[in-house]
Amino acid sequence: MANINEIAKIAGVSSATVSRVINRNGYVSDDTRAKVEAVIKKLDYVPNRNAVFLKTGTTKMLGIIAPDFSDSLTVFLRSFTLAAQKEGYNVTLFITGGDKQKELDAFEMLRHKQLDGLVLVIRLNDWDQLEPFTKYGPIVTWQRVDSKHIPSVFMNHYQGYMLGLEHLYASGCRNIANLYGSTRGLNTKSRMQAYADFCQKYKLDPKLEQQFKGLNSIEDGEAILDWYAEQSDKPDGFATSSDAVAAGLVAEARRRGYNIPTDFSVVGFDNIEISRLLDITTIDYPIAKQAQNAFTIIFNQLLYKNLPLLPLEFDLIKRKTTR
Amino acid sequence: MANINEIAKIAGVSSATVSRVINRNGYVSDDTRAKVEAVIKKLDYVPNRNAVFLKTGTTKMLGIIAPDFSDSLTVFLRSFTLAAQKEGYNVTLFITGGDKQKELDAFEMLRHKQLDGLVLVIRLNDWDQLEPFTKYGPIVTWQRVDSKHIPSVFMNHYQGYMLGLEHLYASGCRNIANLYGSTRGLNTKSRMQAYADFCQKYKLDPKLEQQFKGLNSIEDGEAILDWYAEQSDKPDGFATSSDAVAAGLVAEARRRGYNIPTDFSVVGFDNIEISRLLDITTIDYPIAKQAQNAFTIIFNQLLYKNLPLLPLEFDLIKRKTTR
Repeated sequence: MANINEIAKIAGVSSATVSRVINRNGYVSDDTRAKVEAVIKKLDYVPNRNAVFLKTGTTKMLGIIAPDFSDSLTVFLRSFTLAAQKEGYNVTLFITGGDKQKELDAFEMLRHKQLDGLVLVIRLNDWDQLEPFTKYGPIVTWQRVDSKHIPSVFMNHYQGYMLGLEHLYASGCRNIANLYGSTRGLNTKSRMQAYADFCQKYKLDPKLEQQFKGLNSIEDGEAILDWYAEQSDKPDGFATSSDAVAAGLVAEARRRGYNIPTDFSVVGFDNIEISRLLDITTIDYPIAKQAQNAFTIIFNQLLYKNLPLLPLEFDLIKRKTTR
Repeated sequence: MANINEIAKIAGVSSATVSRVINRNGYVSDDTRAKVEAVIKKLDYVPNRNAVFLKTGTTKMLGIIAPDFSDSLTVFLRSFTLAAQKEGYNVTLFITGGDKQKELDAFEMLRHKQLDGLVLVIRLNDWDQLEPFTKYGPIVTWQRVDSKHIPSVFMNHYQGYMLGLEHLYASGCRNIANLYGSTRGLNTKSRMQAYADFCQKYKLDPKLEQQFKGLNSIEDGEAILDWYAEQSDKPDGFATSSDAVAAGLVAEARRRGYNIPTDFSVVGFDNIEISRLLDITTIDYPIAKQAQNAFTIIFNQLLYKNLPLLPLEFDLIKRKTTR
C-alpha cells in the first residue's frame, strides 16, 4: 500500500506537508492541498486507523473472555454485543478452552491498548494475577469477586436456587435430588448452601448420595435417567442449575414414558428458550440485563459517565414440570 | 501513560536511542540499554501494539458480520472462533440489526487494516458495493454469490431440502405444507424450486395456499398450529427450513394433544441440538464444517497457504417425527 513518503515524492512536497493535509492541521496552500489530494486519490491511499488509535488510545473494541460457549454465554454475548454496538463498540470473543495463557493473552491486549475494556465470564487465573490489569482499562466479571477494582454483575445464586427449592417443597416434594453445575465458581457453593439451609429449615434428610456435581449439558441431564431408573427410593423432585440439564432430564424422562410432574417434579434455571419450549418450570435469571449492566459499567468508566444500572432479580416461572 | 520522549528525557538519551532499545534494532551500548530499560521498567511503559500493527499491517483479528443472532449463527460462530483461535486469531462480531451502514462500517475496518479478514453471513448492501473491498483483505460469505473475488462456503439447499421432501414422500405424505424462511437470500428460492420439482415428479398438487414464507423462530413454528387447527383438508407433512421452526411446531402440536407422526410428519433442517432433544427428523446441515472452511479460506489467502477444505454434504437424520 502507498505510504506518506511515496505520496510526498509523487506530489513533490515534503512528507510533513502530506501529513498536514491528511490530519487537517497546520497551514497548507490550496494548490498544494489539491495536488496532494489528487495523489492520495490516485494511489487509493487509506490512512491506517491504528495510527489514529495510537494518538487517541482508544480502539472502540471490547473483549469477552470465556472458557467455552454455552447457552447462557450466548444470551450474555448477544445482549452485550447489542448494547455495545449501540454506542459504537465492537465485541471480540476470546474462547480459552480452559487455557490460562489464552486468558492472559486477552488481558495483554488490554494492556497493549488493543482493547478498551474486558468482560471476564469465569476466571481461570488467580485474581491476584489479573487485578493489576485494571490500571489499563475497565474489567468487569460475571463471577462473585471481592475486589475494589473489578466490578461484578454477579447475582447471588443462593436466592434464586432457594426460590426453586421452596417451590418444590410447596409442590409436595420431600425427597429432592440436586443437579449442580461446575464447582469451579462460587455459584455451586451458594446453591449447596441453599439446599443445606432448606433441609434444616424443613427438617429433611439431605440425602447426600443423590446430590450430583459437574452437570452442565443436555446429555448430562439425560444420563441422570439411567441412575433414576435403578433407584428403589426414587427422588420426587429435581432442582437443577441450568435449563440445559433440566431439558435433557425432562426430554429423556418423557422418552422413557415417565410422567412429569406425577412421577417427579423438575425445576430448571436460567429461563432460556429451551425451558419455554419444553414447558419446564424454571428460575428466571436475567442474563440479558446482567450483560447490559456489564456494558454500562465499562462505558461509565471509559467515558466518565454515571449511567444507572438495571435492577436484577430472580423470578420463579411456573410451567408444567411442577405441581 | 509514559511515551518515548519522556523516557528519553529521563534517561538522558535521544528518543531514537529509546526506539532502538524497544525495537531491538541498531546499535546501543550495553550501558545505555541498561539505563533506558531501567526507566522503562520504572515508568511501566508498554509499547503500543497498534504501533507494531502499523508496521506489519496485520492485527490477527477477523470479523463476522450478520444481521442478527440465530441458532445457526451461534453454531457457525462457535466453530469459526475455535478454528481461528487455534491459529492465534481473535474474532470480532458485527451484528448489524439490518442496518446497511453498520455492514459498511465493518468493511471500512478491513480497509483501514483493523481487521485481517471478514466473513459476511448474509449481505445487506449490493455485491457491487462490497466487492471492491476484497483488495484490502480476504472476504468469505455464507451466501451463494457469483463472484471471482468473494469465495463462499454456501451449500445448495435444493439438495438438502429435496432429501427431506423425498423422505416425507417415502413416509406416505402426499399433502405437504412448507415452512420457508426469509426470502432475502437464495436458499428459500432453492427450496421452493425443490418443492416445485418434487410435485412435478410425483404429480402432486403443489397447494400454494399452504406454503408459508418468512418463518424463522420457535414462535413462528408454534403459530402454525392455529392455522392447522382451522383447516378441513389438513396437510399430512411439514417440511421446514430450520429446526427452530420445526421445534416450535412439534412442541405446540404435542401441547395440543396431536400425535406426531400419526397426525402429521415433520422434517426439520440444520440438525442442531434442539432437534435431537425433541426427537425431530431433520437434515444435517454441516454448519460447523462450513465455518471451518470459511476460516481455512481466509487463512490460506492471508498466509499464501493451500490447506484443503472439508467436504460438505447434507444428510437425513431419521428420528421420531416421521414414519
